[in-house]
Amino acid sequence: MTQQLIDVPAGLNGVIAADTAIGAVDGDRGFFHYGAHDATTLARTRSFEEVWFLVREGRLPNDDEARAFRSLVASLRAIPVDLLPVIDVMARQEASMLAKLRAVLSVAAHVLGFDPVIDVDDAARREQTLHLAALVPSILAALSRLARDEAPVEPDPTLAHAAAYLHQTTGVVPTPVAARAVEQYMILTIDHGFNASTFTARVVASTGADPADAVCAALGALAGPLHGGAPSRALDALDEIGSVDRAADWVRGEMAAGRRIMGFGHAVYRAPDPRSALLREVAERLGGDLVEFAIAVEAEILVTLAELKPGRPLPSNVEFYAGVVMETAGLPRSMFTPTFAVSRTVGWCAHIVEQAAAAKLIRPSSRYIGPAPTPAWEGR
Amino acid sequence: MTQQLIDVPAGLNGVIAADTAIGAVDGDRGFFHYGAHDATTLARTRSFEEVWFLVREGRLPNDDEARAFRSLVASLRAIPVDLLPVIDVMARQEASMLAKLRAVLSVAAHVLGFDPVIDVDDAARREQTLHLAALVPSILAALSRLARDEAPVEPDPTLAHAAAYLHQTTGVVPTPVAARAVEQYMILTIDHGFNASTFTARVVASTGADPADAVCAALGALAGPLHGGAPSRALDALDEIGSVDRAADWVRGEMAAGRRIMGFGHAVYRAPDPRSALLREVAERLGGDLVEFAIAVEAEILVTLAELKPGRPLPSNVEFYAGVVMETAGLPRSMFTPTFAVSRTVGWCAHIVEQAAAAKLIRPSSRYIGPAPTPAWEGR
Repeated sequence: MTQQLIDVPAGLNGVIAADTAIGAVDGDRGFFHYGAHDATTLARTRSFEEVWFLVREGRLPNDDEARAFRSLVASLRAIPVDLLPVIDVMARQEASMLAKLRAVLSVAAHVLGFDPVIDVDDAARREQTLHLAALVPSILAALSRLARDEAPVEPDPTLAHAAAYLHQTTGVVPTPVAARAVEQYMILTIDHGFNASTFTARVVASTGADPADAVCAALGALAGPLHGGAPSRALDALDEIGSVDRAADWVRGEMAAGRRIMGFGHAVYRAPDPRSALLREVAERLGGDLVEFAIAVEAEILVTLAELKPGRPLPSNVEFYAGVVMETAGLPRSMFTPTFAVSRTVGWCAHIVEQAAAAKLIRPSSRYIGPAPTPAWEGR
Repeated sequence: MTQQLIDVPAGLNGVIAADTAIGAVDGDRGFFHYGAHDATTLARTRSFEEVWFLVREGRLPNDDEARAFRSLVASLRAIPVDLLPVIDVMARQEASMLAKLRAVLSVAAHVLGFDPVIDVDDAARREQTLHLAALVPSILAALSRLARDEAPVEPDPTLAHAAAYLHQTTGVVPTPVAARAVEQYMILTIDHGFNASTFTARVVASTGADPADAVCAALGALAGPLHGGAPSRALDALDEIGSVDRAADWVRGEMAAGRRIMGFGHAVYRAPDPRSALLREVAERLGGDLVEFAIAVEAEILVTLAELKPGRPLPSNVEFYAGVVMETAGLPRSMFTPTFAVSRTVGWCAHIVEQAAAAKLIRPSSRYIGPAPTPAWEGR
């Protein structure tokens, strides 16, 4: 039973690791979708909860289902009392928000009564992942407030998911425009093909580990700079640029130093990132000095990049306006990547359920390239 | 730039995800090796620290190097004071030891001054992973003792790694025979081909995340029942069997109920698991009633399995004697899987360093099998 080893491109590039009905990216045509629905259309026309229902069920809810699902999610946002001491200790640690969230979720599995997914049926797994994803924003908001020596805010069940998260984080009920802006960002970031964190979640789920194990692993992958997705970096760059007339020189300086321009370029899209275009619209609706500045700087950067890299399109990506939208909506910069994690957890959870149902361990092979070994019985 | 999708067997079975010089399993010939060395030979003739050096450096140390490395590891075992409050809170949670370890390591990254590996060179990454792997047994021992309302034990720098871990866990300096038995178990479980947790560690490391992120993710995969490796289950089965004359009936009952016989059969080996054979010897040297009972029951189970599944060899695997060895050496049952994590962390860390040096994101693709999507501009 010698196993045949199969050679594939480095990094498993292009290799089909799983079938999925959750969604995909069409890099050529420049769009991405959840099930049959273009994600930007969903972000324009639907609530976060409706799209959450879609990635769980494979179809959009009718009005009654949407109402029921919104109530159900709202009822699951309260933090179990047993978790509060852990959140309190973790909030005061020197660690990233994602690391603190992972620490809390490590214990949450037991507080929530999870068993390894292998022992539960599909329905129970769906419930577990719903509870987990509903709790993540409350945990993050509490971690963020306690780190600033502010008391956690109880979730308001009358608010929609994105608005409730903003309220819990900032302590202020957001304006409808701000809540909708963050909601649209969150809809756009639920899922995006088979990125490294989604793949990590599926690998761990494939072992039969519980959904919290899989989400904790995905959070680690999300922290990796090569995964992409740190909306605060693009905003940091805007701060550094300072004024529109300095943008071109700043780009030249960064390129000369061999650094990537955060907020521009994407592994999959050569066409403009559809998330970026929609987020620019969202930002314009929010308005304000930062938005105007960002739009002017974007134009300068694109012109300069086209000049410096004529053959290689580097369109603005999801990061560029994400930070602008979140900052304008009142989120602290330390919560930008965590906000991405709030929505992406919904995507990860759908993938965890799908992978667990496939009941097949994801376990590739390696090629041994070290010195030839000798078995014990042949001596040495 | 349409990406060509590559069809491969389900679960990436046999697909080469990475090159490695750390080690491999030769399932046909029934042995596994670290670099050029048969792992069972290493377990018979070397210390844990010497083999740790081997998986880090690709060669065994000379006497001076071995002494220096042993001192270095011993100096890294003390728990940083900033971690103690976190360990104290986590020890009192209702969660698995692996989940508690993950929670502590989530914060340890910052306490230890890790930056994402992408920003550090290979030498710094090696230091980070050495510190991390050296600390894991101290953290686990402290978690275990605090959960039993016992004070953590300071690491004794004069003891070798396995003996120090036993001392810190039980509070008693182990006998040389017990320390060597656990050391041999730990040498045998440092690495074992491209298992699911090792692969998970490499996927997360490939994003540029820090070594703690990668180890935390691997711990989640290790928790999955399909990953295998829960030495307490085989011991639980021995408890359930109770007496040798009940073994055959017990096996028949389990098989009739459609359950797997824990401690028997392996995905890779058809020949006997070389770890099992050596651990039986180790157990025999330890001696005692449990060891005699296990040997007698193993014989009964093998006969019964051969009878029930004549065409399908189900030799005893690493789990069967691992629990017997650890129990006889004085480890509490809750520390069996954590002890596996102590040694496997050394293997994961070697893979993390190797993967980070490859500087290539592991990011396969998926095949979208849902309803056909329509881009926004084509309406709907």
